[in-house]
Amino acid sequence: MALGSRGFSLLRGHLGGRAMPSGTLRGAARRGPEGRRESVLQRSPLSAIPPVCPLYSHLHEATVISGTEMAKQIQKEVQRGVEAWLALGHERPHLSIVLVGDNPASHTYVRNKIRAASAIGICSELILKPKEVSQEELLDITDQLNMDPKVSGILVQLPLPEHVDERTICNGIAPGKDVDGFHIINVGRLCLDQHSFIPATAGAVWEIIKRTGIETFGKSVVVVGRSKHVGLPIAMLLHTDGDHERPGGDATVTIAHRYTPREQLKTQTRLADIVVVAAAVRKKASFITPVPGGVGPVTVATLLRNTLLAAQKVVY
Amino acid sequence: MALGSRGFSLLRGHLGGRAMPSGTLRGAARRGPEGRRESVLQRSPLSAIPPVCPLYSHLHEATVISGTEMAKQIQKEVQRGVEAWLALGHERPHLSIVLVGDNPASHTYVRNKIRAASAIGICSELILKPKEVSQEELLDITDQLNMDPKVSGILVQLPLPEHVDERTICNGIAPGKDVDGFHIINVGRLCLDQHSFIPATAGAVWEIIKRTGIETFGKSVVVVGRSKHVGLPIAMLLHTDGDHERPGGDATVTIAHRYTPREQLKTQTRLADIVVVAAAVRKKASFITPVPGGVGPVTVATLLRNTLLAAQKVVY
Repeated sequence: MALGSRGFSLLRGHLGGRAMPSGTLRGAARRGPEGRRESVLQRSPLSAIPPVCPLYSHLHEATVISGTEMAKQIQKEVQRGVEAWLALGHERPHLSIVLVGDNPASHTYVRNKIRAASAIGICSELILKPKEVSQEELLDITDQLNMDPKVSGILVQLPLPEHVDERTICNGIAPGKDVDGFHIINVGRLCLDQHSFIPATAGAVWEIIKRTGIETFGKSVVVVGRSKHVGLPIAMLLHTDGDHERPGGDATVTIAHRYTPREQLKTQTRLADIVVVAAAVRKKASFITPVPGGVGPVTVATLLRNTLLAAQKVVY
Repeated sequence: MALGSRGFSLLRGHLGGRAMPSGTLRGAARRGPEGRRESVLQRSPLSAIPPVCPLYSHLHEATVISGTEMAKQIQKEVQRGVEAWLALGHERPHLSIVLVGDNPASHTYVRNKIRAASAIGICSELILKPKEVSQEELLDITDQLNMDPKVSGILVQLPLPEHVDERTICNGIAPGKDVDGFHIINVGRLCLDQHSFIPATAGAVWEIIKRTGIETFGKSVVVVGRSKHVGLPIAMLLHTDGDHERPGGDATVTIAHRYTPREQLKTQTRLADIVVVAAAVRKKASFITPVPGGVGPVTVATLLRNTLLAAQKVVY
């Protein structure tokens, strides 16, 4: 199961109606490769920030992070992991992707994943189905993939047509092959700080923060967005205990969302050491990591790492 | 699975070393019937609060809530529910409690649960095991209870001896009989805003907030404590979408914990509309709801409601 473009259009209103100042940032406000706006901002101490600044005036304080470079680094690590795995006599990791319908964005995301998998030595297969496919047939497909020993990881690209219940399909994938981490057991394990497949976008945000050397212990973090695939797992990773089975960030985390009043959000982001924007607040926040070249490529890299972990059966 | 006394002793340090002013509050700093300190505080507008007040100076702003009265009300509702269920020709709901060892606090909690169950017409049985019991034997017991059609709900009182893995035991209870809501699938479902057995303490805090008429939509809430049985489910209930299958509170939630710096916690609680203390900060915060007579009795009442729901099979 993989997520396509999602966002909270209402949030934009809360973030204010003024136009974004131009020329103050790297990266454009275009739609990224995954259509999402997850962005990481680290700021200098509070004293440097005017007391009533709107959200976007943090701009000149922002550290702009190149996701593209970081993705390359992670992909190299996964590639080395794949080679070491093969050298031990194991089969090549294999990712099966189920893609339903003809949503152009979904096709693009899937193409990116397949291309990246191929580049680092992970096999993939693409199972295309028309948008009229029944839920039953999709469950038959995941059943077959679950039982197939050559398949390491399974991913059903979201969104699915309305007549299909996404939750049922997510739960139809064997937890040990659920490289998107959307199966109910992987959700539960993530929330209990146990080893699990961490949803790729949340994993990417974690990698970006950690590899950039941003301290989270005892820091104040605002996560804007409470989606189950992005905002929630990010909040889980960042607030939980660094000494648990799956270590967390030990940050104090505030989860803001479409119903967070604008003034409250301003106050919270002003107090925060780190702001993670995990919602489509296009005009106001897309400048913090460049898009494209932000979280998107790192997301693909973490998905491939999950596929290697699935092949190695280190989570289950 | 049920939780005994737990707490974050380190947090106390963060909350400051000054002595609690006496005579300004109802309720003593004694250990409650469940040994926990979950407390709810609603404050008047920010302007009324001095800018550098320590946490406990919010005292005179606090609404003190009687958990005992609310628990009676919920128990009456559950009792009526049981009677209606029996009138339809169904069997009486039955709660099986497994109690290991001779921890006096655990015995007291279990006694309270059995007494309350009996008072509202829920059958219960107590399975006592010495502290040397093996994990295997405990799993055999839960297996038998899982299969027994007369058993509606199963509860293993925590903590368990060190040689037993609590997570394994929690996952050994059938999700549909897991009235404490600690099975991995119930955790996952809670976090995805699906119907599930809500852990009793979190359910109690929710009831207290809602029945007191405290608005949560768009409000700022600080949850102090990130335990998987108390703090986390409270944060989940309060921040999530009011329109989802299991409605949430639509609040902006900040999760604070033992590593939240004292100054940060002060700032956050000063900004908050509601503070839920879900950690054992005995000396500093136990005054907000009276103990005993605070969350404890409501927790027992919500556990019994879960038992009725289990009998009615409305969650699974």
